[in-house]
Amino acid sequence: MSQNTSNFSKWYIDTVQKADLIDYTPVRGCIAFKPDGYEIWEHIQEEMDKRFKETGHRNAYFPMLIPESFFQKEKDHIEGFSPELPWITEAAGEKLEERLALRPTSETMIGHLYSNWIKSYRDLPVLINQWANVFRWEKKTLPFIRTSEFLWQEGHTAHVDEEDARKETMQMLTIYKEVVEGLLAIPVYDGQKTPSERFAGAIDTFSIEAMMKDGKAVQAGTSHYLGTKFSEAFNIKYLNKENKHAYVHTTSWGTSTRLIGSVIMVHGDEKGLVLPPKIAPTQVVLIPVGPWKKNHAILEKLDEIFVALKAKGIRVRLDDSDQSAGYKYNEWELKGVPIRIELGPRDLENNQGLIKARDVDEKVSIPLESIVESIKKELETMQTRLLEKAKVFRAKNSHTHIDTMEQLKQHLAESEQNGTIPGWILAGWCGDDACEENVKEKTKFTTRNIPFNPPTTKHTCLNCGKEAKHTVWFARAY
Amino acid sequence: MSQNTSNFSKWYIDTVQKADLIDYTPVRGCIAFKPDGYEIWEHIQEEMDKRFKETGHRNAYFPMLIPESFFQKEKDHIEGFSPELPWITEAAGEKLEERLALRPTSETMIGHLYSNWIKSYRDLPVLINQWANVFRWEKKTLPFIRTSEFLWQEGHTAHVDEEDARKETMQMLTIYKEVVEGLLAIPVYDGQKTPSERFAGAIDTFSIEAMMKDGKAVQAGTSHYLGTKFSEAFNIKYLNKENKHAYVHTTSWGTSTRLIGSVIMVHGDEKGLVLPPKIAPTQVVLIPVGPWKKNHAILEKLDEIFVALKAKGIRVRLDDSDQSAGYKYNEWELKGVPIRIELGPRDLENNQGLIKARDVDEKVSIPLESIVESIKKELETMQTRLLEKAKVFRAKNSHTHIDTMEQLKQHLAESEQNGTIPGWILAGWCGDDACEENVKEKTKFTTRNIPFNPPTTKHTCLNCGKEAKHTVWFARAY
Ligand SMILES: [Zn+2]
Ligand SMILES: [Zn+2]
Repeated sequence: MSQNTSNFSKWYIDTVQKADLIDYTPVRGCIAFKPDGYEIWEHIQEEMDKRFKETGHRNAYFPMLIPESFFQKEKDHIEGFSPELPWITEAAGEKLEERLALRPTSETMIGHLYSNWIKSYRDLPVLINQWANVFRWEKKTLPFIRTSEFLWQEGHTAHVDEEDARKETMQMLTIYKEVVEGLLAIPVYDGQKTPSERFAGAIDTFSIEAMMKDGKAVQAGTSHYLGTKFSEAFNIKYLNKENKHAYVHTTSWGTSTRLIGSVIMVHGDEKGLVLPPKIAPTQVVLIPVGPWKKNHAILEKLDEIFVALKAKGIRVRLDDSDQSAGYKYNEWELKGVPIRIELGPRDLENNQGLIKARDVDEKVSIPLESIVESIKKELETMQTRLLEKAKVFRAKNSHTHIDTMEQLKQHLAESEQNGTIPGWILAGWCGDDACEENVKEKTKFTTRNIPFNPPTTKHTCLNCGKEAKHTVWFARAY
Repeated sequence: MSQNTSNFSKWYIDTVQKADLIDYTPVRGCIAFKPDGYEIWEHIQEEMDKRFKETGHRNAYFPMLIPESFFQKEKDHIEGFSPELPWITEAAGEKLEERLALRPTSETMIGHLYSNWIKSYRDLPVLINQWANVFRWEKKTLPFIRTSEFLWQEGHTAHVDEEDARKETMQMLTIYKEVVEGLLAIPVYDGQKTPSERFAGAIDTFSIEAMMKDGKAVQAGTSHYLGTKFSEAFNIKYLNKENKHAYVHTTSWGTSTRLIGSVIMVHGDEKGLVLPPKIAPTQVVLIPVGPWKKNHAILEKLDEIFVALKAKGIRVRLDDSDQSAGYKYNEWELKGVPIRIELGPRDLENNQGLIKARDVDEKVSIPLESIVESIKKELETMQTRLLEKAKVFRAKNSHTHIDTMEQLKQHLAESEQNGTIPGWILAGWCGDDACEENVKEKTKFTTRNIPFNPPTTKHTCLNCGKEAKHTVWFARAY
């Protein structure tokens, strides 16, 4: 499975299926998450959910079907989402009076309900999250990254004022950054979206952006300050301490199963998946080698290691199937298992095992008496190493010396000629939509975000050369 | 909120809303689960999920939209579900070529996929569970108990033969019984459904049945042996050890958010919810009483207790709002919080607090130095006590002396006259659908299940007086 720039999407599509993460279905753009794919999501959920609860949020569940009239109430929102909505028009043999959309996001339903739930400043803030399936009927689909149905969490909060709401918006973006970097070992740039890339109905959208191995960007999480746009549309008012009615300020924020796709495209290699230990369904696989069937002591020792690892909460498997050792190596490498332990007769004699981390070439001998400690340590080391590697890759492919469209076009021509990836470019932008649009039209590079902490500051607009108001990441994006 | 037999459903509807578990929405039969309602589900999920994983199951996720042609493949299945399906007919501005149903259950989609996933006996058993939302467009709806959209888990397994599949069917029913009794403190009868009450497409359906406080039954969980009906419909074959193709035997099993409704209807009283400690969002509420605002030591002590309880993993809240103590008592009783601790100036002087369990009338003084231990113990005691109380209630309202339709009619007339609940009756059944149908038509009593361990064995059919083949629970049911 070649991972060449030109073949990257084929590599990706092959890998997610061969590694048993998903299967396609006859329903357009809808995938089935197989257990290994879904378990990655469960690990992400567990960590996110913990962080949400630690910061005072609670989960709730809102109806998936949204009346058409709800969408009409916020004009930017309906404009943004109507091209992608699937509609229920009949149920139980009867035609419905009003069409019901499958939710693409729940701002409208939640806006409607919050207008009943919130009466006084004592009810605020409302800090609610939902884990749910959502639908966006996309034209081009790609497993995990863009599917008609996907799984996500959507936070929806209401606050007394802008300050409190903006604090929430930033807090959640920070949590996303910490979880994506800490758990998925994916470095991200946090920053603000340009107006053209904002969520439909938001005042400000903030995002974390990640670089894939083909140099394209994935928006890995977004957090929106919605101001009073939805509270005005749905009449969410409260009685403040001065006994006056005021509109609440709302936020929403989300991450989705596209994070799984990002993990694959950031860490995977030509042999298949490379999973960060913290989210790997299997963290360690034990493989007997050599003439192990004639030597019962080998399996007995592996059983012993299996039990010891399991007792430490490590997700371990023992592969004592009839396949050859080489076949097993390939199989578990394809599935991205972080650590493999090989044990043969000579190893046993020397009271040692061979440990092989998925992301390095060397095998290392380790004494059996301290094998559990060695594995625990290596899992941690590998987790850090993957993040560091991804940071090095990102740095190498982040270009900060491109200041004009001519230079960008030359850079793209060179990349194409050399078969290298064009990566991201950090450039100035004057703030004019037309400049952003022209860059997109000519190069397919779109603004990813205006990073909070850019590596450097740019002074002239990439497109028009006028004074830059912002320093922006431009990239091709999924 | 009166809980009289005649008012029970009004009591229920009032209580779920006043206790802040749900809200209604403009979408027919779809409720919003508010945080306190959803958290009960989270506790149920956590325990169920643990039990599923301990028995070798893994979670996956399947598309929610099911092509109409899939339903046509199993004739009993489509007959059973087609009256309740909502349909997607358009998406992204275009009419679909084939209508897509919102899943009422996933046997068909999963059947289609398993036919690709299962090739050899080495692939078996397949043990998969899904947590998901499902839709059944019901005519009469009731929060949690019967809603157009609800949340559930559905297990779908495939096995080499009938024996293995039947073992799975029973194993999951046992897990359901243990979780519903152990976690929800609801005693259930496990048994087999009569053919007329089987799942659409099953060979055998087994259920656990619970008695509500109005004497009606709730089917709290079901486990189905599907034989080869779905594997034949979807061509799920495997190569067995003899190198021959054979159909797999499948099972499915489910529990849903109707368990939340059952908890309320089994334990609730005229003051509101009574929640078993293990699933209560708040397990303990601390309330300062008397002139506590003038005596800072009271709040300080309560803060100390709060921290100590939290450290033990107990879900505790401190209510230091401006409301009166009486108001707070009512409020937290309505919400079903298992334990309330009151602390006033005199209590503090005597170094004691008052502990009040939600389900008993007395308050008990306990020494402050051992308060954490006392609370832990009382939470456990209350959990057991609720189950025992529910068992006593069920025994009192389970009638085993009714052998003829005349006796049943007389029993119903007496119940009506006395304003008592008719409860369940254990009666013989000859096995004839017509007898079952006649009982239903005349009394609205339906067969709940044929219990594995009936309190006694019946010998003549309730309806026709002929020899009974089965001893059956009859009851009115939700
Ligand atoms: Zn410009
Ligand atoms: Zn009969």
